[in-house]
Amino acid sequence: MTDKLINIYIISDSAGETATKLAKAAIAQYETYPIKFELYRSTFVETLDALENALDEAKELNAMVIQTLISEELVKFANEFCYKNEIFRLDPLSPLINELAVRSLEKPARIPGATHFLTPDYFNRMSAMEFAVKYDDGKDAKGFLEADIILLGVSRTSKTPLSLFLANKNFKVANLPLIPSAHIPKQLWEVDPKKIVGLTNDPVILNNIRKERMRSYGLNPDTAYSAMETIHQELKFANDLYAKLDCLVINVAQKSIEETAAIILSELGLENHNYYS
Amino acid sequence: MTDKLINIYIISDSAGETATKLAKAAIAQYETYPIKFELYRSTFVETLDALENALDEAKELNAMVIQTLISEELVKFANEFCYKNEIFRLDPLSPLINELAVRSLEKPARIPGATHFLTPDYFNRMSAMEFAVKYDDGKDAKGFLEADIILLGVSRTSKTPLSLFLANKNFKVANLPLIPSAHIPKQLWEVDPKKIVGLTNDPVILNNIRKERMRSYGLNPDTAYSAMETIHQELKFANDLYAKLDCLVINVAQKSIEETAAIILSELGLENHNYYS
Repeated sequence: MTDKLINIYIISDSAGETATKLAKAAIAQYETYPIKFELYRSTFVETLDALENALDEAKELNAMVIQTLISEELVKFANEFCYKNEIFRLDPLSPLINELAVRSLEKPARIPGATHFLTPDYFNRMSAMEFAVKYDDGKDAKGFLEADIILLGVSRTSKTPLSLFLANKNFKVANLPLIPSAHIPKQLWEVDPKKIVGLTNDPVILNNIRKERMRSYGLNPDTAYSAMETIHQELKFANDLYAKLDCLVINVAQKSIEETAAIILSELGLENHNYYS
Repeated sequence: MTDKLINIYIISDSAGETATKLAKAAIAQYETYPIKFELYRSTFVETLDALENALDEAKELNAMVIQTLISEELVKFANEFCYKNEIFRLDPLSPLINELAVRSLEKPARIPGATHFLTPDYFNRMSAMEFAVKYDDGKDAKGFLEADIILLGVSRTSKTPLSLFLANKNFKVANLPLIPSAHIPKQLWEVDPKKIVGLTNDPVILNNIRKERMRSYGLNPDTAYSAMETIHQELKFANDLYAKLDCLVINVAQKSIEETAAIILSELGLENHNYYS
């Protein structure tokens, strides 16, 4: 039996990131079924010609259309085309922009996202990413003094992806791996403990992850690295340090990066309601 | 004169990333006006109680509501609450999920995003991020042989943020900074040139960025690093190498990370229509 095929066509005047996230969130609700999903994308669409080509292709593919366009002319064209051709269309931005017009009594600038990136926020994000890479894995203890957030954790507690995810939200993050024999840099004791997060995990999960890792290296999975005794020692060392530092502790077992990050921002009081800080 | 205040309230059963992106894209169209935007978020909302609290708060704040909930019960409750209280509400996921139900003739799983992350795709993304950090800045030439994409570029051509952005799309990326005196690792010549991207920038822009960087270090901006002659030499060295390698060349001046990444995936033939590859 061949799988059913559902095509989704994303049209954006920028990179189409938001529309892609929406599509994936919806698709995730159907992934246990024998359905094949194909995602098509026309990005940086800024002319009627480019838009018409994209819509023709979407029609040809019998695709669902998700569009995130800013230009009034392009939005109108896409809507009319889809209406006339009975194409499913989601336009999640227009209702928001229209409601903002009602509330502000102002007209939207109608500047596509793609031509609208050279903001201080953008450059801060780029710096935060470079910071996270520079001060990953305890590479330079000076980073602790400059960081907004310091992540501590034993091996396989998602320190690096978590640092990068938080960097993408403009926070300067440094991280330090903890092993019992490791030297704890003196800078750590100079930092406000309210900036420090201690990551832990469940011993059984760590054991499985580490065995898997050894297997992926083509090695015997039952090494000292994966042994339960080693893991318990490491976790004890980490938990003792967290207690001494009096820092926030999070068990990342069963938590996605997004979820752990949300807890960190909330618990460290870094959630910022202001769009411009 | 005080700024107008517009509150936006995001309710999600996950981290609310998609809704936040939508809100920011809409807000960006109004940022030249004297309006203050505040973004509130209730994330990981999975119970009626938590939802009701969030909606009460949104009502109190006279906020626009953007919700990305998966549970049918919660969606229904939010819709009725907003309708009854005349609250603006955007629910971008429901139309997509419903259309998928029509096309697939299947029922959505209704599993919140937050409890739905332990997929192979998720773990591949985590590995790709660790790869990008490990092989950033030419740290280990062995990475070139394993990478899906290799970025070359002179200083300040966004190699690191671009590597991380592509890693977030599950590609293994290594990057190498180019300076005329640098040794070019022999591994680079063993790699398929179709995996290599040479980044350049406009000399005047590089000059300005570098002066700015020197100033931020508290140094005299007119150093050898920022001198036009040095920049021309570096760019010539880079362009000669790109010609020899016969690789894709992209000038990143006036391009956002998102835009450069889109060009790379399209030109290297890495755009994948299949949701599961």
